[in-house]
Order: sequence, then C-alpha cells, then structure tokens
Amino acid sequence: MDAHIDRRVMPRTIFSPVPISNSLRQHLGNRITSIRQWRGLIEEYHKWLPVSEKTPIITLGEGATPLIPADHISEIIGRDIKVYLKFDGLNPTGSFKDRGMTIAISKAKERGAKTVICASTGNTSASAAAYARRAGIKVFILIPDGYVSQAKLAQALVYGAEVITIKGNFDKALDIVQAAAKTYPVTLVNSLNPYRLQGQKTAAFEVIDVLEKLPDFLCIPVGNAGNISAYWMGFSEYRKAYHGQKLPHMMGFQASLSAPLVFESTVEKPSTLATAIQIGRPVNRDKAVKVKQDSRGIFAMITDAEIIQAYKLLGNTEGVFCEPASAISVAGLLKHRYEVPNGSTVVCVLTGNGLKDPDCAIQNNCAIFHKKLDPDIKEIVNVLGF
Amino acid sequence: MDAHIDRRVMPRTIFSPVPISNSLRQHLGNRITSIRQWRGLIEEYHKWLPVSEKTPIITLGEGATPLIPADHISEIIGRDIKVYLKFDGLNPTGSFKDRGMTIAISKAKERGAKTVICASTGNTSASAAAYARRAGIKVFILIPDGYVSQAKLAQALVYGAEVITIKGNFDKALDIVQAAAKTYPVTLVNSLNPYRLQGQKTAAFEVIDVLEKLPDFLCIPVGNAGNISAYWMGFSEYRKAYHGQKLPHMMGFQASLSAPLVFESTVEKPSTLATAIQIGRPVNRDKAVKVKQDSRGIFAMITDAEIIQAYKLLGNTEGVFCEPASAISVAGLLKHRYEVPNGSTVVCVLTGNGLKDPDCAIQNNCAIFHKKLDPDIKEIVNVLGF
Repeated sequence: MDAHIDRRVMPRTIFSPVPISNSLRQHLGNRITSIRQWRGLIEEYHKWLPVSEKTPIITLGEGATPLIPADHISEIIGRDIKVYLKFDGLNPTGSFKDRGMTIAISKAKERGAKTVICASTGNTSASAAAYARRAGIKVFILIPDGYVSQAKLAQALVYGAEVITIKGNFDKALDIVQAAAKTYPVTLVNSLNPYRLQGQKTAAFEVIDVLEKLPDFLCIPVGNAGNISAYWMGFSEYRKAYHGQKLPHMMGFQASLSAPLVFESTVEKPSTLATAIQIGRPVNRDKAVKVKQDSRGIFAMITDAEIIQAYKLLGNTEGVFCEPASAISVAGLLKHRYEVPNGSTVVCVLTGNGLKDPDCAIQNNCAIFHKKLDPDIKEIVNVLGF
Repeated sequence: MDAHIDRRVMPRTIFSPVPISNSLRQHLGNRITSIRQWRGLIEEYHKWLPVSEKTPIITLGEGATPLIPADHISEIIGRDIKVYLKFDGLNPTGSFKDRGMTIAISKAKERGAKTVICASTGNTSASAAAYARRAGIKVFILIPDGYVSQAKLAQALVYGAEVITIKGNFDKALDIVQAAAKTYPVTLVNSLNPYRLQGQKTAAFEVIDVLEKLPDFLCIPVGNAGNISAYWMGFSEYRKAYHGQKLPHMMGFQASLSAPLVFESTVEKPSTLATAIQIGRPVNRDKAVKVKQDSRGIFAMITDAEIIQAYKLLGNTEGVFCEPASAISVAGLLKHRYEVPNGSTVVCVLTGNGLKDPDCAIQNNCAIFHKKLDPDIKEIVNVLGF
C-alpha cells in the first residue's frame, strides 16, 4: 500500500492480494496483481443460497453495494459510536429489491415460468421488470394509482413491463396478485415468494464481510417487513462461523401515519411521503415481530419531518442521496441514539436511490440556488463572493 | 462451485477463493471463506494513481461497476461478436464522473482547498457536489439554464451545492468557471483538472480485470471528450502488463446536431435530447482526435431517433436503464456493426443512470400501460388474459 488509508473515511476491510488465474498469470508474468471483480450475488454467495447447477443465473451484477462510514452522523451522535450506511440504492435498478429478484427470477426461469406478477409501491416493480425482461419472461405489475413516484413508474415502463394501476392502495394490490397467482399460471414475485428473502439476506453477509464482525445495531426502514426479516436470517446464518459473536439488535422504523407494527394493528389508510414504506398491512408481520423479540430490538415511528431532516443531513454532509423511506433509518437512529451504548457499531440500511424521487430533493435541500444569471464573468464572480 | 454458471448471462471473471485476514481466520476456523469487498477506486488502484500516503481519501465506494453481457444485442449483431455493457451509471451519484471526482476532491483536500467550482450538463455537478460536501468543501456549480434534467439538478441541490444557472450553454459556463479559477482561490474540477481523467482511466482497468484481456472495440459517448481519452490512457497503461495484446479501436459517438468532432468544427448551438453530451466545443478535443488516430478508431454521429431505439432495446431486452446519452454507444455499435470483424469483443460504455432522466423513459418505452382500473379481481384477471 502506497496510499495512506484514512480510517475516518474508509471502512476497515479485508485486504489481501488476490491470487490470479493461471491463464492470466501466463499473460502477465508477475507484473501486476489483477483486481478481482464482483460477479453478482448468486455466484458470490451460492453456497448460502437455494440454487443448484441447474439454475440459470439471471444477474445484472447486483450486490457488493458500498458500506459507507458516516463520519458526520457518528460525530453528531458521539460517544465513540461508529455509524455506517449500507447504500443498497446502488443496486442495478436502484434498490435492495434486486438482491431478492435475481434469485426469484432465476428460480422462476429454472422452473420454466413464462409470466411473473407482483404488486408494488415502485421498487419491487422496477426490479421485477428488469430481471424478468432480461430473462425473456413476461411481467405484470400492479401499482396503487398516484402513490408511486414518476421515476419508479418510468423504470417499470422502460423495462417493458405490462403495468396496471388500480384505484386502491398497495395492500389491495397485493391481495389481487396473490389471488391471481393462486389460480392462474403466473408466478408471484412479491416477498411472499421465499426466494426473495433468501436473496435479500446477502446484504447481511456483505456487512459482516466488510466489518469483519457483526454490527451491534441494525437500523432499517420497515414497510412490508421483508427486509428486516431477511437481514436477521442473514446475520443468523452467517455468524455460525463467527462462534461466540452476538447478533445485532434490530431497530425497525416506520412512518408515523403508516406504522402498523408499532401500533400492532392494521392501518387502513397509511400515509407518508416515504411512499416506499406506505404499507398498512405488512405481509411479513409475524416474522418481523419475532425478529424484534429475538434480537431484543425495537419498532418505533418517525414523523415525516424527522425523515426529511435526516434526508437533508445525508445529502449535505455525507454526500449520499437516498430516497425518503431510506432516510428513516438514520432519522430513527438519531431519535433513539440514547438506546445505543458507547462504542457501538451501527449500520443504517439505505434501501433505495434518491434518484427514485427527485421531486423530494427539489423541495427539501440545504442548497443556495441562483437562477438565470447573465453569462457575465463579473456578475458571476460577484455571486461567488470574490 | 455448486451453481452452474451460464456463460450466456455471466461474464468470464477471475474466480479464486480469497485469502482472509489472520484476525478473521481466528474467528472462523476454516468454516467459511469470507468474500472480499470493494474498497473504492483509490484504495484498489492506488499504484496506478497520483496519490501518496499524504492524500486523504474521499470516497463513496465508487467503481467496480458491473460489466454486463448484452446477449440480446450480441444476438442482433451476430457473427460471434460478444457485446458487454460497462454500466457506470451504478456509481454513487449515478455516473462515471465519480471516478474522476474521488481523486480530484481528494487532491483538492490534500492541498487545503476550501472551495471548488465546475460547469456542468448535470453529471459533473452532481458528482462534484457529493464528494466536495463529503470532504467539507464548499462547491459552486454553473449549469446552462433549461438544459439540465430535473433529477440532476435535484442531486446538486440535495448535496448542498451553491448552484448558479446561467442564460447560455455549457461551453459558455465552462469559459466562466475557467476564468474564475484562474484569478480567484477556487479549484476547478472540470475535466481540465488532470486528476479527473486519472480517475476515469480506472474504468478501463476494470474492463480488463473482468475480461482477462483487452476488448477489441470500445464504443463510447463523446461530449467534452474526456472519457474517451481517459479510457485510452487506462488501456495503454494497464496493458503494459499484457505484453503483445493490442489496444482496442475506440469508437466515439456524438449526437447529429451536437457533433463537433465529426464535423471537425465548433457547433455554436448544439442540440440533442442526450443532454449529457450536448457540447459544441469539447475541451479535450485534441486528446480525443489523437486517440481516434492512434487507435484506428472512428468518430460518427447518431440521430436522436437512433439513440432512443437503442435506449428502449436496452431496457426491454437487457434490463438496463441508462440515460439517453449512454445509449448512443449501443446505437453507434448497431449502426457501425459491419466495421466490427467476426468474433470481436466489444464493450459499450453506459456513462449514466436512466433515473437521471425519467421523463425520457415515460415518453419512450415498449410497455403496455393500463390506467386506473377498479381493484376488482375479475377485471384484473381479464386484463392479464387468463
């Protein structure tokens, strides 16, 4: 290593020169050490996944998303608590859903499925459409009219899905696709499909692979409650190798007006600007409740205003642009920081890319914006303050 | 390997179990092989970059973007030509600009810069803002009013830049920031800053690291002509280890009404829906002309209609959503396919994420869209065609 690694800005990672293949070695002599590139979730973690040599691998190179040290947020919290952001918005379609979808679609393809279907608040539909179309499979998508951001709708369309908007919310859309998949030859790829959570658990593997240990706390947005269950499964399975290490406390956050797990009852008309978690009847409710108990974690609700505060903080100080629903994990951590002991390692999951909802950024930011100046050097320099 | 790797959907990559650190080995015994995670460009390729142990590393985990096999496009072209997509839209701010910015900002920080400035069609400004704010540096951005997508503007704002829109095009904006940086204490981070291209050359390294060889052709969008020059630098430097292997032919594509390199003269009023390459006076013109000559490559122009055709094809068959400017590399390859010999390996660079311009996807797609249906299972099943 020539370069000095500043531990304040770089995670401590497993560093080792990577052995290179024989064919490459013949080319190279011993002049360079080639850098091994990521091959997508299924190839990397196949030992931990329900795939066999018969499974065709439908991949877009998902996974291996950055675990970004959040120094400014760590500093706000203080007490030697170290905060990391697992930025899953850098997956191929911009959200963590790709982790589950690479497996769900690969397994659907393996079994000869010709058509898949899902209900979605936007991220699932984008992911399902991309992977299904890549596999040459037809894909139907049901979304609640008016509650999916334009950018997410754009994704489903550009990937060539057959998109149906319904007058009703996500929970209603999920009822319909479940009923359809029960009766007709169409494979459901919502998180009721068990392969989805199998794929999503790999995010926990990656966290451990970077930290070289389990985190003490995981902060995560909770909508349909699949991802919190998947992380827990991932931590539980992968730590078997780390005997003696204890599992993290799972902190699941919901928006105040869309918090069925906090209130322990269905919310008929969930409402939040964090549309990705605007779900009143989480299908993975029972799993998530057990995760909370087993991990001695919490469910808590966060207001939209608190979400936006964290969202702006992430952009302006960490250089990370996530969707509003993702910012709830940081907002939740900030609100519940006193439940975190000194010196803890905390991972906040950022589930989706901010570009999924640019309007929110236009309306909520810390920028200074000068509009339509004349292209005159003197005038501009004046604005620059020189 | 338990899982069968279908070579039609997976790149041939360097596969080898990765040695693990001693501390981790103590934890693990020999039970699992930990997967090494990517540590960002500067740490991975520091030997090839102008950094020293004094350089603070400002990183968001950029680089290691997927090289996606484009089977459907390969099939259209035929003759055993193998096409890959280097999807640099999966960088932290959604474009290849992050490769250059991690170094430009790290070096600016090293020299104690308090303020940076750039002109931009949108991607540079997003990247500059994110890295500068992460480094605690103030950032000024000049953009041509009305010619930057809302999503890119949203990025600059959410990252907390000071944004100035001017009545004039990109070329004019660049003139102004150059003049300002010459006279005042503000560091220019446009691609005139030599660290930018140093960082961008790493994309060529990654291509070689995945393919285990040099490609025969590289197809790339050309706006300000920095990236084509950076790839050439990367191929030239990295292949020193691959003695005997020849460098790729570089195929640079410009939009028909914004093609100064094709016409060999400045375009006063460049116009194209591919706003990221809407540049009439490329600042890296001379470098790019030399690359074309040295690589026995071509510059060619592509109509907006051809760009959109490739854009839709990428979404609907490959499951890849890029911005319109990126699709020009595939559009160009399709148009000039007969200049590519049988059996060639071709890499098309996709410089930006499609979410940077969702309106384009709403307007241009192959989807079927049913709007505002009643949430009635019978009606929906009828639409599904069962």
